[in-house]
Amino acid sequence: MKKSFSKNFCLIIEYIGKNYVGFQRQKNGISIQQTLENALQKSLGEEVCVIPSGRTDAGVHAIAQVVNFFSGTAIPAERLAVVINSHLPEDIRVKQSFAVSSSFHAQKSAVKKTYLYKIFTGENFSVFHHDFFLFSPRKYDLSLLNAAAKMLVGTHDFASFVASAHTAKSTVRTVFSAGFTQEGDCLFFEITGNGFLYNMVRIVVGTLLDVGCGKTTLAQFQEIFLSKSRPRAGKTLPPQGLYLKKVYYD
Amino acid sequence: MKKSFSKNFCLIIEYIGKNYVGFQRQKNGISIQQTLENALQKSLGEEVCVIPSGRTDAGVHAIAQVVNFFSGTAIPAERLAVVINSHLPEDIRVKQSFAVSSSFHAQKSAVKKTYLYKIFTGENFSVFHHDFFLFSPRKYDLSLLNAAAKMLVGTHDFASFVASAHTAKSTVRTVFSAGFTQEGDCLFFEITGNGFLYNMVRIVVGTLLDVGCGKTTLAQFQEIFLSKSRPRAGKTLPPQGLYLKKVYYD
Repeated sequence: MKKSFSKNFCLIIEYIGKNYVGFQRQKNGISIQQTLENALQKSLGEEVCVIPSGRTDAGVHAIAQVVNFFSGTAIPAERLAVVINSHLPEDIRVKQSFAVSSSFHAQKSAVKKTYLYKIFTGENFSVFHHDFFLFSPRKYDLSLLNAAAKMLVGTHDFASFVASAHTAKSTVRTVFSAGFTQEGDCLFFEITGNGFLYNMVRIVVGTLLDVGCGKTTLAQFQEIFLSKSRPRAGKTLPPQGLYLKKVYYD
Repeated sequence: MKKSFSKNFCLIIEYIGKNYVGFQRQKNGISIQQTLENALQKSLGEEVCVIPSGRTDAGVHAIAQVVNFFSGTAIPAERLAVVINSHLPEDIRVKQSFAVSSSFHAQKSAVKKTYLYKIFTGENFSVFHHDFFLFSPRKYDLSLLNAAAKMLVGTHDFASFVASAHTAKSTVRTVFSAGFTQEGDCLFFEITGNGFLYNMVRIVVGTLLDVGCGKTTLAQFQEIFLSKSRPRAGKTLPPQGLYLKKVYYD
């Protein structure tokens, strides 16, 4: 329960997902949430519950996850980041801390989000890439990739691209932009939307890569998209290539 | 003892130093050598001893360490990399394997080596940089850094830049090139020489950075260099910024 004297604080955090079972508390391992809430308890001297912009799955990274929480602390909001960081392990870091209005809710107030997926397409996958890229040593056609990605833009039913275990009432979402860029042996996919279904980005990229390597035609990709049938779409790519890059608020 | 029927094999390997006590076997933890020799035993069915181009210290990375070993294996040399990699953890990888003449010795045959040191100079040190860069959020003058680095080139006594625990008979080494490049908030220092003393690169960079931020003048840097006195030089920088980049053979 929100106490009357407590203030609402917002944190922008980054983390390497590798050693965690995901953002949300789970019984089967250590979560980002648990680690962050432990650090907050040590920093604030009170138990708080953080609200994230959304969960990230096991192994998924965040460049800028957003959370909020209520606290009666007297520590100035801007100073909080340094204090909390002193209680966090080296793979989670608060980049920024500030006060927000009491109505701010990291999940409900979010209007859009950007995810990034990184793919290493060269032959020599490096130990330095291992935890941060999908390794897929093939030739991809960038213009085919982007032609397919463009089809995602707009308000559509993304039922083909959601894990069967999803619990969303509707599978309709709006994608504002989606596309690939290439730097040497690395492919970067960025997608911005008003919300994403369970495993949606990882399935979308898996299906797009099938187009990029010639396994699926653009016409087939469109059929898959319109079919609203998960089994017709491509693989769910592994989590280590995925990054929550930005969350937007009004 | 080298068996008469055994062949000499060379491996080019890369590793993330973070989880290891260094290349060489030690009693206080797991070394690269032990991990690699275990993988070789599983791959070859025989115990072998690897000879590295040189040791790397605890936490230091390698982009291309070179080792050789003798084995009577019938596995084709080029195929060995794949076999060995199947027995290695994800932070050590054989990039290449090939047969070499029986006189090849990864350490004694090496004629020069390149080390790289990475420094992040921005304010926002990221969890993604943590294990791979020195974090030093200051303004550095690139031309001052390179003017000082240039003084290292040539055959000199590097006694000012060696850890007091060193056991080298001579502290004279030849540096062929040394310099910094900058990409955004990142500084990269590369140095190529015929050999390096214990902690030499990390002390050299620590002393050069003092020049780059104005703490030490170029004239003072030269004095320090000529003094052959370790206490006058700068800090030994931490290992996570250091990479063995290349080893050269005739």
